[in-house]
Amino acid sequence: MPATPNSAETLDAPGRAVVLLSGGLDSATVLAIARRDGFACHALSIDYGQRHRFELECAARVARALGAIDHKTVAVDLRAFGGSALTADIDVPTHERVDEIGSTIPITYVPARNLVFLALAVAYAETLGASDVFIGVNAVDYSGYPDCRPAFVSAFENVANLATKAGVEGRRLHVNTPIIEMSKAEIIRTGASLGVDYALTTSCYNPPAPMLACGHCDSCLLRRQGFEQAGVPDPTRYAG
Amino acid sequence: MPATPNSAETLDAPGRAVVLLSGGLDSATVLAIARRDGFACHALSIDYGQRHRFELECAARVARALGAIDHKTVAVDLRAFGGSALTADIDVPTHERVDEIGSTIPITYVPARNLVFLALAVAYAETLGASDVFIGVNAVDYSGYPDCRPAFVSAFENVANLATKAGVEGRRLHVNTPIIEMSKAEIIRTGASLGVDYALTTSCYNPPAPMLACGHCDSCLLRRQGFEQAGVPDPTRYAG
Repeated sequence: MPATPNSAETLDAPGRAVVLLSGGLDSATVLAIARRDGFACHALSIDYGQRHRFELECAARVARALGAIDHKTVAVDLRAFGGSALTADIDVPTHERVDEIGSTIPITYVPARNLVFLALAVAYAETLGASDVFIGVNAVDYSGYPDCRPAFVSAFENVANLATKAGVEGRRLHVNTPIIEMSKAEIIRTGASLGVDYALTTSCYNPPAPMLACGHCDSCLLRRQGFEQAGVPDPTRYAG
Repeated sequence: MPATPNSAETLDAPGRAVVLLSGGLDSATVLAIARRDGFACHALSIDYGQRHRFELECAARVARALGAIDHKTVAVDLRAFGGSALTADIDVPTHERVDEIGSTIPITYVPARNLVFLALAVAYAETLGASDVFIGVNAVDYSGYPDCRPAFVSAFENVANLATKAGVEGRRLHVNTPIIEMSKAEIIRTGASLGVDYALTTSCYNPPAPMLACGHCDSCLLRRQGFEQAGVPDPTRYAG
C-alpha cells in the first residue's frame, strides 16, 4: 500500500518528507513514489566518502528531474572508520552471473550506513517539521546487509520517535521503505511508470568512467537483469 | 552497577569500546569510568559545527590524559540543518539561578544529536570489532532533551544490534550510559575519585574566550552548583 501524507497528525507541515537520495536507481524510484503520493520532498544526499563523486551529481540531477523542493548534501566521512570496499582501498568483487552473488554480508557493506543515513534524515526532518522520511532500502537484492531488513527499519522508526521533539510531542515520524519488498524488476517497472529517467542514475560499484558502468560488479549484474526482467529498455552504458 | 567488558561474548576484541567524547565534564567522566572498568577505549568526537572549536581540543586533551588508545574526530555538518542555539545563529539563553531553568525542550537542543552521534559510534565500533559504546547522556540535568532518556537509549541499543554485522552474528553490542541517572554532583565526585582533571574540560554554552566560562548559561549554572554540592574545588575559570 502506498504511504500517504499524514496531514491529520502533522499540523505544522502536512505531507513534508525527507527523501534519502544516492544517485542510484532505487532511491530515484523512491523519490518518484513519494512525489506520486503527494509529499513535498526535500532530497538529502550523504557525502560519506564514496569512491565515485559523480554519484552525488546524479543525485542532484534526479532531485531536479523528479521535482524535489530542494536537495541538500551533508558530508560525513565514514572513510575515517574504514572497513568497506565502497569507501576504503579494498577491491570491489566482480561476478559473471547473478547467481554467483552470495547471501553472506558482502565486502561492499558500509558499517551501519543506513543507521547513520537515517539518523541524519531524522535530524533534518526534525528541523523541517517533516512527518516522513523515505529510504530506498531493499531486502530482496541486498539480503546480506543487516540494515536493509524490515526488522531494522521498524526498530529504527521506534527509536526515531523516542529521539525527537516531534515524537515527544505526539507527532509521529514515519520511516517509509516503499521498495523494501520489491524485486529489481518491480522497482524498475514502478519507476518507469512514474517517469523516472534511469539514464540519470548510476549503480556501478566500479565504473571505468563517470556514467559508464563496468557491467560485471554485483550491482551491474542486478541492474541489467532487472531491466531485462521488467521488459524496460536499459539506458545504462555498460563497458562490457 | 559498573559495566564490565563482555569478553566472553566478544572473541575478536575483548573489552574494546568506543567512547563519545565532547570535551565536556560529563563525557570525560564517562571515559574515566570506561577505563576503570577495564575497557580499551577509542575516543570519538563529532565535529558537528559546534560554535566553539576549542571543545574539540579539550576532547583531545582529555583523551590523552585519561589513557584512551586513540582519539578520532569525525565531521558531520549538522549546521546544514539549522535549528539549535548550539550550532546556528540563535542566541543562547542565560539564567541567574539553576531553578529558573525550565523542563521543556531547550533551544540548545540539537535535533536528534545523540541519535546521530550514537549511529556514528556504532559504525566505528562495527569497524573496530568493539563490543561496547559509551555515551555521557544524563536524564537528570537534561530532562528536556528527548534523546537523553533511558527509553531512547535502550531502543537505540536494540536498533544497533539489528543494524550491524555483529548483531546479526550474535555478538551483542552494548550501549553504556554510566552517568544517566547521576546528579551533576555525583558525576563530579565519581570523576574526581578517578582522577579526572576537570580543568581540561569545558561546558559553557557561551564562553567569552577559550577556556573561560560565562558563568550564567544553563550549563555553567549546573556545573557550578555541581562542584559546590560535590564538595570538590571547581577549577573552572568563570567570567562572572
